[in-house]
Amino acid sequence: MEQYVKSLQERIIKEIELIDGKKFYIDRWEREQGGYGISCILQNGNVFEKAGVNISVVSGDLPIPAVQEMKSRHKEIDPSKGPFPFFAAGISIVMHPHNPHAPTVHMNYRYFEIEKEDGSPLSWWFGGGSDLTPSYLYEEDAVHFHKTLKDACDKHDPNYYPDFKKWCDEYFYLKHRKEARGVGGIFFDDLDNKPAEEIFAFVKQCGDSFLLSYIPLVKRRINTKFTPEEKEWQQIRRGRYVEFNLVWDRGTKFGLNTPGARIESIFMSLPLTERWEYMHIPDKNSREDKLVQVLKQPNNWV
Amino acid sequence: MEQYVKSLQERIIKEIELIDGKKFYIDRWEREQGGYGISCILQNGNVFEKAGVNISVVSGDLPIPAVQEMKSRHKEIDPSKGPFPFFAAGISIVMHPHNPHAPTVHMNYRYFEIEKEDGSPLSWWFGGGSDLTPSYLYEEDAVHFHKTLKDACDKHDPNYYPDFKKWCDEYFYLKHRKEARGVGGIFFDDLDNKPAEEIFAFVKQCGDSFLLSYIPLVKRRINTKFTPEEKEWQQIRRGRYVEFNLVWDRGTKFGLNTPGARIESIFMSLPLTERWEYMHIPDKNSREDKLVQVLKQPNNWV
Repeated sequence: MEQYVKSLQERIIKEIELIDGKKFYIDRWEREQGGYGISCILQNGNVFEKAGVNISVVSGDLPIPAVQEMKSRHKEIDPSKGPFPFFAAGISIVMHPHNPHAPTVHMNYRYFEIEKEDGSPLSWWFGGGSDLTPSYLYEEDAVHFHKTLKDACDKHDPNYYPDFKKWCDEYFYLKHRKEARGVGGIFFDDLDNKPAEEIFAFVKQCGDSFLLSYIPLVKRRINTKFTPEEKEWQQIRRGRYVEFNLVWDRGTKFGLNTPGARIESIFMSLPLTERWEYMHIPDKNSREDKLVQVLKQPNNWV
Repeated sequence: MEQYVKSLQERIIKEIELIDGKKFYIDRWEREQGGYGISCILQNGNVFEKAGVNISVVSGDLPIPAVQEMKSRHKEIDPSKGPFPFFAAGISIVMHPHNPHAPTVHMNYRYFEIEKEDGSPLSWWFGGGSDLTPSYLYEEDAVHFHKTLKDACDKHDPNYYPDFKKWCDEYFYLKHRKEARGVGGIFFDDLDNKPAEEIFAFVKQCGDSFLLSYIPLVKRRINTKFTPEEKEWQQIRRGRYVEFNLVWDRGTKFGLNTPGARIESIFMSLPLTERWEYMHIPDKNSREDKLVQVLKQPNNWV
């Protein structure tokens, strides 16, 4: 997994730099308790307001709250037998374009392993997914994004796409707003019901599909003309993105509560600029309202 | 308390409108489960980017998670005997000026009562406080703010100011950043160790001090010239404000998890615009750095 996320990070950065014309800032950091990460950020680019492509490969002893949290999903973990050594490798991507007609995208894939005293795995699993967050709905974009993910899933298991699409709709949901973060995609966690090599092959397929799923959408929308009002609506939607990440996202919460976590890498997911307006309600049947209606009720895009 | 918060809201709004020149938008709302609120918002004013003065007077049955949370602090509450009828009345203020040299202020005072079946109180307490969040440090502003609060406290109990100043420093703290939200003020909760009338008199003194503590600071700073870089620094600090409110603030969390809570009134506390930059670290000994240093280590302002 370490080699794979490294090479995927390189490929994605190269492609995004070609589109944006600006180079990523590359930051390699070491974790005191074990491991390292490479955070690549492009800020104030020509196309992207903020784009981050991070990998991390970390190990050490799992903090007790983390063990407690995992216990319910992994019966083989007995907190009283801890602390447990762990190993985790993953890639995280978030891209926020300037143009309000171009959607924000998120992708994350990770491998997690908890080890016995002799270093052999006590428990392991894969998790991750990818989802799309437009400020203006283009149905053909949502369809293309979902279709690309479905093709990747279908090569491995016919149940993956329907199951993980549903999981994504449930996970990326702002309970307090009663609306989804965006038009969804796929999401899964604790995947360990097949041999690790088979699941790894599936995860690689998903990772390799990222550029296919997103780049055509950016290329379609980056030259679309937009008004100051459309930019303002995008800023309001970005506020919602922050609400999800800071209030509901398990990964962010886990990070903020983990000693030694690299806050700047966690917060690379937040848009550069956003806006909270009191009682901003789009006009009935406007394009803004059309988006909100779709977020209230998940759609089957393929 | 209901009459007091209503009249305080009116006085504060009148004074802020005089300074800003723009009128508050006044929104009266009813709560389905019992009670009402009045949310007053001034957005995109001449002086204030966003200013909110809300009151709420609500009652109903306390949700179980709320009872569970209160149980540890109020031994007289036995969750198995619930649900409990409750009554709460409070005022909440947050003001974010445009000018980066003028500080953001927050104030909240509330009375909470849990009732027996016959309507008599099983338990009651007051809570609240007020704190100041500058983007640029003016020591004389922090001193004036704290001095005004100390004067109000000292009229009622010599321990109030030192105790509640410390509590404020501990409460308005971003653990993941290891920094305070601002230069503090006072904060207290579960105050019930004197007759209710005495504590109510103290709370009124604090509420009445709000205009004295804040208005002189705004008047001093609203005409200070500022650069685009200073405005950008303010936007970054506003991102931190959002981080505190969405990640750590108990009141916000409680609200987001309460069915029927009015999300727009809760989020009136968030600044209109903000910014998250990757790895923004102020130059050593710059004015921006000077603020950050003060936030790392609470100061005794009086």
